[in-house]
Amino acid sequence: MTSASLVTIAVDSMGGDHAPDVVLEGVIAALAADPALRVMLVGPADVVTSFAEGRERVEAVVATEVVGMDEHATVAVRSKKDSSIAVGCRLVKEGRADGFFSLGNSGATMAAATLMMGRVPGVLRPAIAAVLPTAGAPCVLLDVGANADCKPEHLAQFGAMGAAYARSVLGVESPRVALLNIGEEPAKGSVLAQEAYVLMQDRVPGFVGNVEGRDIPAGAADVIVTDGFTGNVALKLMEGMSRHLLGEFKRAMTASAVSKVAAAVLKPSLNGLRDKLDPDVHGAAPLLGVAGLALIGHGSSGARAVASALRVGAVAVRGGLVQRVAESLGELGA
Amino acid sequence: MTSASLVTIAVDSMGGDHAPDVVLEGVIAALAADPALRVMLVGPADVVTSFAEGRERVEAVVATEVVGMDEHATVAVRSKKDSSIAVGCRLVKEGRADGFFSLGNSGATMAAATLMMGRVPGVLRPAIAAVLPTAGAPCVLLDVGANADCKPEHLAQFGAMGAAYARSVLGVESPRVALLNIGEEPAKGSVLAQEAYVLMQDRVPGFVGNVEGRDIPAGAADVIVTDGFTGNVALKLMEGMSRHLLGEFKRAMTASAVSKVAAAVLKPSLNGLRDKLDPDVHGAAPLLGVAGLALIGHGSSGARAVASALRVGAVAVRGGLVQRVAESLGELGA
Repeated sequence: MTSASLVTIAVDSMGGDHAPDVVLEGVIAALAADPALRVMLVGPADVVTSFAEGRERVEAVVATEVVGMDEHATVAVRSKKDSSIAVGCRLVKEGRADGFFSLGNSGATMAAATLMMGRVPGVLRPAIAAVLPTAGAPCVLLDVGANADCKPEHLAQFGAMGAAYARSVLGVESPRVALLNIGEEPAKGSVLAQEAYVLMQDRVPGFVGNVEGRDIPAGAADVIVTDGFTGNVALKLMEGMSRHLLGEFKRAMTASAVSKVAAAVLKPSLNGLRDKLDPDVHGAAPLLGVAGLALIGHGSSGARAVASALRVGAVAVRGGLVQRVAESLGELGA
Repeated sequence: MTSASLVTIAVDSMGGDHAPDVVLEGVIAALAADPALRVMLVGPADVVTSFAEGRERVEAVVATEVVGMDEHATVAVRSKKDSSIAVGCRLVKEGRADGFFSLGNSGATMAAATLMMGRVPGVLRPAIAAVLPTAGAPCVLLDVGANADCKPEHLAQFGAMGAAYARSVLGVESPRVALLNIGEEPAKGSVLAQEAYVLMQDRVPGFVGNVEGRDIPAGAADVIVTDGFTGNVALKLMEGMSRHLLGEFKRAMTASAVSKVAAAVLKPSLNGLRDKLDPDVHGAAPLLGVAGLALIGHGSSGARAVASALRVGAVAVRGGLVQRVAESLGELGA
């Protein structure tokens, strides 16, 4: 940690659909909730300077450029050396911040974090981990998009890194690590899945075998490993299903006058449910495997997601996430 | 069709979690709903003979063997020449039935259908198509499990075959065919997805580009193409999410005494919603690309799913599905 008592997170004030407003609002909420949190707000002078003025535990760091949401990630990182994303990652690299959070261009955040912070020794591919609400305990799904094409040894590392995250951030002592597949038996699935099974069974502590798509929302494992293509499809499908089914549910409830009254009675319970399904609760997905904490937010995030991301970031720093990832790789013999 | 007016579907009386009861019940319902449907019930003598006795439009066909749900598919097909699955597929091959439906071992059904009915000329890989409920019109997703590893040319064929299904069974005149990917832009995704995009844009009529996971339940396309690994994960994840979220709704609604009363008022609307989300409505997934109609049911199917499968089967036969698949492959230049 940057100081004996405070955790410092560098926060990108730009990017996403509603920046900088939701970012600033989220930072205020996070600082109020955690007296040991400090924020370095990175972005255009007119945004960050006035915000930091007179505020405790906020430092303004001016970045003169912004990476657009649709810009090519690696091109943008190479050409815009003074973007809020590049500056934020540099703060972590230089040890001035303990972590970086952005809800901007996620490809650029990944590229900048990997380039500037470097990888944990032995890591073949950093991976994005999403924490999903399930019928049981939250589940860490990875990779959800950093690596569209993977090899078996990548998946085995994802298992170890995901377990390190579950231990240090979610407080799961002995995480059950599963492989996402299309059948329960070891010999099922793609060549990748079959080979990954053998490797994971051999090497990954807590490996419990294959799980299928339907097991994800059921909470069948603490960590579920897959390639970044399948994981990204699964993550977005879960978001889409939640939205679709809540919409259908609303329509079903307001179908008649009588049911409208009943729906009004049920509203508090249903708001609780919406909150439970809301991805905002976890706020951001860490890029595991880089030698620093990088948190990637959803472009459509609201202030609550920003606050959650900062809370998760502080927990990750205090839980020694990066060190745990390094240790887990060591155990894997990678 | 086997006769000027009747459609004949061979039905496996065995397999699945609740056979033969749900099968027999489903057959009765389907025959009552469609006076131009005829069933050849395949299975053990004691099951099929007594059922057929005195019943119109039902013929008993004895099969002395049964493929277990956990048996190795191709081994079972090779060793059990007189299984209900093998006999049913043979009835189609010999032109005695227009199609075959089984909710037994799906791998064995696939293997037997491919082996005995053969492939439509030019088809590289038969694929399983699932019809999914969405916020809009139903969506055909394929492949959902026949081919865990695919090449770009397979995906292009899946697009053409899925469009043939949407036209002949769902009545969609000009189906919008999309590629499941992890971004909207052509250059996104795995190597497979990138190459498939180029091929599909070039060759597949009605190709509308990439869709993402969240677009599936939104009803963004009539046909969505992916490899059998991703498709199987997506299909099972949708089932799991429906089950999980309906369970959460129920819990939210019965949280207090007052909400219990409100929930009772809402019950009819919610049952309607459950029915809408129920995969039973579509009943079975066709194996597209074989030179005959093969319908694969869910092992956990109820009688309603069996009846739906037979209804869908009759529509497919009357719509000339197999012929349309052959034509679509021709248009593709495959």
